[in-house]
Amino acid sequence: MPYINVKVTDEGVSCEQKQAIIKGCTQLMVDVLGKKPQTTFVVIEEVDTDNWGIGYEQVTQLRNQS
Amino acid sequence: MPYINVKVTDEGVSCEQKQAIIKGCTQLMVDVLGKKPQTTFVVIEEVDTDNWGIGYEQVTQLRNQS
Amino acid sequence: MPYINVKVTDEGVSCEQKQAIIKGCTQLMVDVLGKKPQTTFVVIEEVDTDNWGIGYEQVTQLRNQS
Amino acid sequence: MPYINVKVTDEGVSCEQKQAIIKGCTQLMVDVLGKKPQTTFVVIEEVDTDNWGIGYEQVTQLRNQS
Amino acid sequence: MPYINVKVTDEGVSCEQKQAIIKGCTQLMVDVLGKKPQTTFVVIEEVDTDNWGIGYEQVTQLRNQS
Amino acid sequence: MPYINVKVTDEGVSCEQKQAIIKGCTQLMVDVLGKKPQTTFVVIEEVDTDNWGIGYEQVTQLRNQS
Repeated sequence: MPYINVKVTDEGVSCEQKQAIIKGCTQLMVDVLGKKPQTTFVVIEEVDTDNWGIGYEQVTQLRNQS
Repeated sequence: MPYINVKVTDEGVSCEQKQAIIKGCTQLMVDVLGKKPQTTFVVIEEVDTDNWGIGYEQVTQLRNQS
Repeated sequence: MPYINVKVTDEGVSCEQKQAIIKGCTQLMVDVLGKKPQTTFVVIEEVDTDNWGIGYEQVTQLRNQS
Repeated sequence: MPYINVKVTDEGVSCEQKQAIIKGCTQLMVDVLGKKPQTTFVVIEEVDTDNWGIGYEQVTQLRNQS
Repeated sequence: MPYINVKVTDEGVSCEQKQAIIKGCTQLMVDVLGKKPQTTFVVIEEVDTDNWGIGYEQVTQLRNQS
Repeated sequence: MPYINVKVTDEGVSCEQKQAIIKGCTQLMVDVLGKKPQTTFVVIEEVDTDNWGIGYEQVTQLRNQS
């Protein structure tokens, strides 16, 4: 009965990438813990780069610097 | 002082439905645990069906199959 | 496919109260949104009163004052 | 390695305010717990006032009453 | 900069299983999204079976029935 | 009406440190966003170092290496 919440910055995650994340996380629960896929939830949240901070800075700023 | 986070797929939840969820969750905290409504928070998050996975699949796919 | 996370202070929530919270939240999703109970998750988290703050203060302090 | 999630109502939080929240939360982790800024995440989530309930009511309703 | 939160029932998850979950989730972020492992957080939360509900029932009850 | 969730590793956070985190986060919401302290929640979660991963590894392993 796992619930997996994946938060990533909103920088163009494609539908195929979302499918791959869902499949990969679910498979991990099946392989490692023997969980059932039909009661494994994966919820992806895409966060604006203005709203994600690391090392005192917005990811927006970090992207502009690099 | 409860905090209740309700995540549902973003499939047209109406304003009235949101009110009903807020009222119902708050009443439950009052009835079952004797909590005060004025310090009971209910936060509803609507998740794109592409971003919610169950049984290896996106809800978008499941909706298309059914 | 809702996921409901209920955070309350850890002040002796009984097994019966937990069951009532689970039943009540699930019923709300069925009644208001037409969701299926078998894919409705309710996860209760009990938080130490030292770890919950409101109005600048730990709940532990508030309980001692009242 | 702290992870700080700040949920606020979506009522016009400016980019400068977001920066101040990120800097302030990160500094707090450095000052109080001696954590490293480069592994301190701050994630801000802005929630629609229709989706946030307190005291049985949507924040939207509370704003209209006051 | 992903943050992955894995919630599972507290039913004897071993240290090796936790390592496998951390490695697997991190690898998925690297492979699918090109994220850096050193800024990928995986946080596992083990939830008491009394505190996890599905289909109106506590997991504790479901385990006893099966 | 902010809700702030602070997750840190469980490595001996003292009661005074918890108070400082609660006060600091609340003050930040007051100063930056003009929020009311009495409806600002701060919830601290202490996570076992076995359950927190970064860079493919458990924090427990990282602490042993350094």
